[in-house]
Amino acid sequence: MRVAIDAMGGDYAPDEIVLGALQAAKAYVNDDVEIVLVGDQSQITQALERHGNGKESNITVHHASEVIDMHESPGAAVRKKKDASVVVATSLVKQGHCDVVICAGSTGAAVAAALLGLGRINGIERPAIATPMPNLTGTTILLDSGANVDSKPKHLVQNAIMGAIYAEYVLNIPSPRVGLLTIGEEESKGNEQVLATYPLLKQLNTVNFIGNVEGRDIPKGTVDVVVCDGFVGNIVLKFGEGLAKAILQLIKESIKTSGFLTKVASMLVLPALNGLKKKLDYAEYGGAPLLGVNGGFIICHGSSQAKAIKNAIRVAKEFTEQDVVAHIRETIAKEGVVTHEGN
Amino acid sequence: MRVAIDAMGGDYAPDEIVLGALQAAKAYVNDDVEIVLVGDQSQITQALERHGNGKESNITVHHASEVIDMHESPGAAVRKKKDASVVVATSLVKQGHCDVVICAGSTGAAVAAALLGLGRINGIERPAIATPMPNLTGTTILLDSGANVDSKPKHLVQNAIMGAIYAEYVLNIPSPRVGLLTIGEEESKGNEQVLATYPLLKQLNTVNFIGNVEGRDIPKGTVDVVVCDGFVGNIVLKFGEGLAKAILQLIKESIKTSGFLTKVASMLVLPALNGLKKKLDYAEYGGAPLLGVNGGFIICHGSSQAKAIKNAIRVAKEFTEQDVVAHIRETIAKEGVVTHEGN
Repeated sequence: MRVAIDAMGGDYAPDEIVLGALQAAKAYVNDDVEIVLVGDQSQITQALERHGNGKESNITVHHASEVIDMHESPGAAVRKKKDASVVVATSLVKQGHCDVVICAGSTGAAVAAALLGLGRINGIERPAIATPMPNLTGTTILLDSGANVDSKPKHLVQNAIMGAIYAEYVLNIPSPRVGLLTIGEEESKGNEQVLATYPLLKQLNTVNFIGNVEGRDIPKGTVDVVVCDGFVGNIVLKFGEGLAKAILQLIKESIKTSGFLTKVASMLVLPALNGLKKKLDYAEYGGAPLLGVNGGFIICHGSSQAKAIKNAIRVAKEFTEQDVVAHIRETIAKEGVVTHEGN
Repeated sequence: MRVAIDAMGGDYAPDEIVLGALQAAKAYVNDDVEIVLVGDQSQITQALERHGNGKESNITVHHASEVIDMHESPGAAVRKKKDASVVVATSLVKQGHCDVVICAGSTGAAVAAALLGLGRINGIERPAIATPMPNLTGTTILLDSGANVDSKPKHLVQNAIMGAIYAEYVLNIPSPRVGLLTIGEEESKGNEQVLATYPLLKQLNTVNFIGNVEGRDIPKGTVDVVVCDGFVGNIVLKFGEGLAKAILQLIKESIKTSGFLTKVASMLVLPALNGLKKKLDYAEYGGAPLLGVNGGFIICHGSSQAKAIKNAIRVAKEFTEQDVVAHIRETIAKEGVVTHEGN
């Protein structure tokens, strides 16, 4: 298996990307995982020399002369910069040299590169980012978490099918519970988009649709796959990230400002707190697959450091081993009639 | 000042509503606050006898024979049940007998009763629920948090104006920072609704518009008023409530399952944790005003207990004292031209 990593994308590129690749290369050395670092050859080589030992036989470098900046218009940048690291990494998959791309750079550019380079699976009109979110008992997949906004009902239906496949094959949840994110449990609660989606989801044969879910159902863990528009999903994702961080900060501050005994006590409680922090840390989850394109594509948080990249390589590995793309292709073909209804 | 409380609305009505009213009556006995409990006379009187001492001269009961159930269609129920507690409470304000309504029953029915009973402020097309959310440094107002979905850009503009007034006069934030909730900081990031709203917000004279904000800005406290569609706001609100609850539960569990020393330590840390819980508890905030109708109307969480109702009465008091309705009326008239642009 070969993973193409955009070594130039993300706040800490290339050093942390290279470091993560080195950690994964060591961890998966017996698993036949080969890592291809794509980007400026001299920068990557220098980073490898700084952090590696020169013995990593399962890491190679593939030169790409350009980089897409966070502030560039994604579609235009991907079209113009044909030698951008993310574009070249994607073409390695397209050409069959690699199985899956990993990118921590601009999400917009990543989605555009994947769409242009790999194309969509037949029957899927818009790909979706499927982000794992921790809940009280495990993990909930939220999709779309930011690839597309103003989705039509049929796009949400496609999200439901893809999310269920990912949850089943990669998270090992048999018959995952799929819910439609809205503002009340009753079928009549929601905006126009959601009201038109509900009856379409009910008609699906391959999806265990449990009906409407509300915001509070995500952390509760009463649903495995939450279907929503990328506008809503992205807001929820970033709000959750910020809220978790704020709560942990408030706990630490309230411990700091309290008396001596509490301070001693808190030192003993800190390990528990750090365990919780780990549970809530996106770096542990590594990356979120872009579902619906013809090939593996894992999108990482812009501030990914080595640990996140290492874990993204694990996600890429599982995604490829489980052949998620083929499962989506087959299921979409089976459900074809329904997904093309709606407006 | 007279507050009309729907004593029959909410999961714990009438007992907890009556209990909250009794606590507020005691706390505000010198503030000239009179509380009118609206609903089934015998049930309310019995609750008053159970929890009160018969000496509450600032509490009266106003009989209403009907109740609107959580599962009834709000508009139809309000029209049909003319003697429903929430309808009667609203009419007490309409007729000038009371200044403000408090309701913990069905939010949909509350909004419908307010719209039908009080009408909209001239220039406001859709009222909005302005919910206070705790952040690292204080409070952020989120509106709309569920009164309306599929809002047009001009409705979001009206939300911005109303939210700024509430933050300034009730939360005492001078020149509150108003942000538009979307998926990126740049003006170009968002769905159709948000992209069309941005230029309209820039044109406002009375609003300190700081541009786009993301989900993570709410807990960070980098914005005082967050403007969004009621669909998005309601999902964010319920997700945040659920996530905060889940995190506190996880901390308590991880302390429970750890060793003896940690358990002792945790007993000392628990007060800090409970302080945090208080900060995150909606009951402390009491209620969220429905802005844009011709009169005071405070909406409470369905599971409000006495403390929430008592605090809602404080919110109702401040809302009335600060004459928020008059300020909205004046400002909307001033900004009139802009709010009627857009589509």
